[in-house]
Amino acid sequence: MAKVKKAPRPKAETPKGFRDYFGAEVTERTEMLSKIAAVYHRYGFDALESSAVETVEALGKFLPDVDRPNAGVFGWQDGEEEGKGDWLALRYDLTAPLARVYAQHRNDLPTPYRRYAMGPVWRNEKPGPGRFRQFYQCDADTAGAPSVAADAEICAMLSDCLEVVGIPRGDYLIRVNNRKVLNGVLEAMGVADETQQADVLRTIDKFDKVGEAGVRQLLGKGRLDASGAYIDGVGLEEAQAEPVIAFLTSQGADAAETLANLRAAVGGSEIGAEGVDELETISSLLLAQGYGPDRIVIDPSVVRGLGYYTGPVFEAELTFEILDEKGRKRQFGSVAGGGRYDGLVKRFTGQEVPATGVSIGVDRLLAALHAKGRLGGKAEGPVVVTVMDRDRMADYQAIVSDLRQAGIRAEVYLGNPKNFGNQLKYADKRGSPVAVIEGAEEKANGVVQVKDLVLGAQIAENATLEEWKDRPSQYEVPRSELVAKIREIIASHDTSGQAPLGQGAD
Amino acid sequence: MAKVKKAPRPKAETPKGFRDYFGAEVTERTEMLSKIAAVYHRYGFDALESSAVETVEALGKFLPDVDRPNAGVFGWQDGEEEGKGDWLALRYDLTAPLARVYAQHRNDLPTPYRRYAMGPVWRNEKPGPGRFRQFYQCDADTAGAPSVAADAEICAMLSDCLEVVGIPRGDYLIRVNNRKVLNGVLEAMGVADETQQADVLRTIDKFDKVGEAGVRQLLGKGRLDASGAYIDGVGLEEAQAEPVIAFLTSQGADAAETLANLRAAVGGSEIGAEGVDELETISSLLLAQGYGPDRIVIDPSVVRGLGYYTGPVFEAELTFEILDEKGRKRQFGSVAGGGRYDGLVKRFTGQEVPATGVSIGVDRLLAALHAKGRLGGKAEGPVVVTVMDRDRMADYQAIVSDLRQAGIRAEVYLGNPKNFGNQLKYADKRGSPVAVIEGAEEKANGVVQVKDLVLGAQIAENATLEEWKDRPSQYEVPRSELVAKIREIIASHDTSGQAPLGQGAD
Repeated sequence: MAKVKKAPRPKAETPKGFRDYFGAEVTERTEMLSKIAAVYHRYGFDALESSAVETVEALGKFLPDVDRPNAGVFGWQDGEEEGKGDWLALRYDLTAPLARVYAQHRNDLPTPYRRYAMGPVWRNEKPGPGRFRQFYQCDADTAGAPSVAADAEICAMLSDCLEVVGIPRGDYLIRVNNRKVLNGVLEAMGVADETQQADVLRTIDKFDKVGEAGVRQLLGKGRLDASGAYIDGVGLEEAQAEPVIAFLTSQGADAAETLANLRAAVGGSEIGAEGVDELETISSLLLAQGYGPDRIVIDPSVVRGLGYYTGPVFEAELTFEILDEKGRKRQFGSVAGGGRYDGLVKRFTGQEVPATGVSIGVDRLLAALHAKGRLGGKAEGPVVVTVMDRDRMADYQAIVSDLRQAGIRAEVYLGNPKNFGNQLKYADKRGSPVAVIEGAEEKANGVVQVKDLVLGAQIAENATLEEWKDRPSQYEVPRSELVAKIREIIASHDTSGQAPLGQGAD
Repeated sequence: MAKVKKAPRPKAETPKGFRDYFGAEVTERTEMLSKIAAVYHRYGFDALESSAVETVEALGKFLPDVDRPNAGVFGWQDGEEEGKGDWLALRYDLTAPLARVYAQHRNDLPTPYRRYAMGPVWRNEKPGPGRFRQFYQCDADTAGAPSVAADAEICAMLSDCLEVVGIPRGDYLIRVNNRKVLNGVLEAMGVADETQQADVLRTIDKFDKVGEAGVRQLLGKGRLDASGAYIDGVGLEEAQAEPVIAFLTSQGADAAETLANLRAAVGGSEIGAEGVDELETISSLLLAQGYGPDRIVIDPSVVRGLGYYTGPVFEAELTFEILDEKGRKRQFGSVAGGGRYDGLVKRFTGQEVPATGVSIGVDRLLAALHAKGRLGGKAEGPVVVTVMDRDRMADYQAIVSDLRQAGIRAEVYLGNPKNFGNQLKYADKRGSPVAVIEGAEEKANGVVQVKDLVLGAQIAENATLEEWKDRPSQYEVPRSELVAKIREIIASHDTSGQAPLGQGAD
């Protein structure tokens, strides 16, 4: 008979730039988000889960660094008839949806509206190593609060969040700046042309690399860079550079000194003075709540990329060092950022709605906790009840049922039970602390064998023959004492940092 | 000056068929899912969060009731160049992604692989009342376990899940059937033609409405329905109907009787006998774990819609009555279902991979808990610290900071403080238990005013003048005793079921 031609098999692959998360990768994130949500909640923020799908129109175009035609989102046209429905897209952050939600429901929501949101967002970007097209964000925002007390509150809350998930004080710093100060500097320089303003901002961003002399050259006629190429300057007068230089070197020994320096840098600019006043208010409000410069500092070097910020901007930086992929020490860097954006809701309503908020980079923060050894311990596998006799599955199910009712994670081996070695290999792969064995003989005698897999592995790796005799890893116990014995073994693992068999804590 | 023409404002709306979830809607779901995850975990299931986006090829087409051209999914073509990239789509359930994940990672995953998953799925369907295009699922599946012990385990686990979220025993029933029994009945009838088989299954589904006589007519020449229309029959011989009728009336007083009836119904069919054996095994395994017919029963009337089931199928039904939108009593109905699907992974690998699992309808279960009064109590609003003097914001921030550090949810009023009435209206909208007031005089005397808003509302609604004098709802306390006083007031609200002012518990 001729073989029927089959359709080709589908490829079992995630789309490019997407990935799956397994076991502890999921539960560690869930636990971290739950701790952060508790802090947000304590500060009076309410949960919001907006639709993952928005109209393209509502989302707007606020993505940084977009150089692709479909503007960085995954979008499609709705409806049955081609060319007739709304264009829809997956949200690319949680801020644009908040603006839409607040505009849509503002008559029912309290004002100010404090909300938190956590969930995946999607970016239609070129995937790269460690760069995914779906990732988590975890935001808190206040809409409808004009006072910078709202910004100060968010900085304090961010500090609490970092500590509650396991970043100790001293290992992070929240740095606060103000867009208005930057605008004041531009005003003090007498730079009103928008192109020139953008050029000046770009130059400010290069201060780290080129230093004061380099900035002066770039603001003036230009300079020869390290590669020998000549970089055209902005073309300002020499004197015009002074406010920028004053601004870039304004960081003082304490907040008062920094603020005085900034005040000098903005000169007579009204908007600049307002910005410095706001920073002063934020600083004093935070001090009143006990958040000193060991946690939150004024730092003129903070420039957030997004175009929509209109006032205070902030960034949480982890200050400890890690080794990068080439084994070089470097600071861990930023894990959260935010600021005030008074124009986003106005897009919908025509009325100014002041708003401010923060977004925590969930994956970066998880990576930091791994780097600090706060996460990534061995996950607790289930007790595995092995199957010695497939006709007595009911007995084995009764055993796991007893264990589960005692709150112990447990399962029966459900693969082919013929090869007992495979069952122990399975238990090993699952990270099981204990295997339970009940053969015909045990059943007849009313006992079970309990195998301590953690101790067994330690013995196999390290023990001398004496120790092996001394420290058996398998016990025969009456069936009625099974739960108690397993509790005892699991408890002994929890204190295994106390070096059984002479091993140090790992 | 001529007014510059502006771009039209975007509409602040979710796309059709999508919605947002606020406050308790989010946290109640999160808490319910977390309880279910704990049960899944205790049974040895590991978390998996697969990508929300899949290739259309990997998703396959397993949606029931699809009559729209793009097959019920939200899809688009990837890549910059039109017509060149993979077709991608949002997942429509959590089972198809599991099959892809297991096929992709099977060499690294344990076998059997028990996993749970929870998250949103998307369906490109015509939205209707209460019918949304994004909703949550919460699944647990075992891949690579051929034994029906895996199916029994999932039924037991489903029972535990329902009880742990607050559905008491007696208010639900898990009903188990087996596709193989159905196939056995068709075999016993001598119906081999696929179209006729489908017609018979459709007729079985009408048993509830048309009864035994109606089924006999529909299997034979046809019948006149209530509207007077003549429905064509399947055209079978009279005798051929017997196995179906035996099957449909096989429910006995206990499992043993039901199983004996089913065995008779499938006659000499081998596949049918296998199906009955499997049901018998499931039943005895569940009994061994203590899951009797008060929780899980064999029920031949269960027919799950999805085409991919190959063995046991199950459904959790809530048996209490609720009032429907027209005020009529009806049973709440199904909240979860699942079954064995041995062919899904084979699509990718060519090799049979037995699998079974359950999906809990998260929104239906939440609705059930609301109907039972287990959810939907008044959410705990924050203590609101009012602003009497906007220059003393630092004092108010210090107050909330004290409260938060004591674990009390609290916030400063961040709207315009000019109108004090608005501040109290805000506190009311927030469901605040307490408002704190510190004017200039209080500040000078080192005291604060604490307003019990819950008691205040009760007094305003119910109190006589004597009671009002007797039970003030505002207290002046030293600033140093603020936290203790607020704790006391909040604790008194928790026991307010004990009828202050003669009110009954609500």
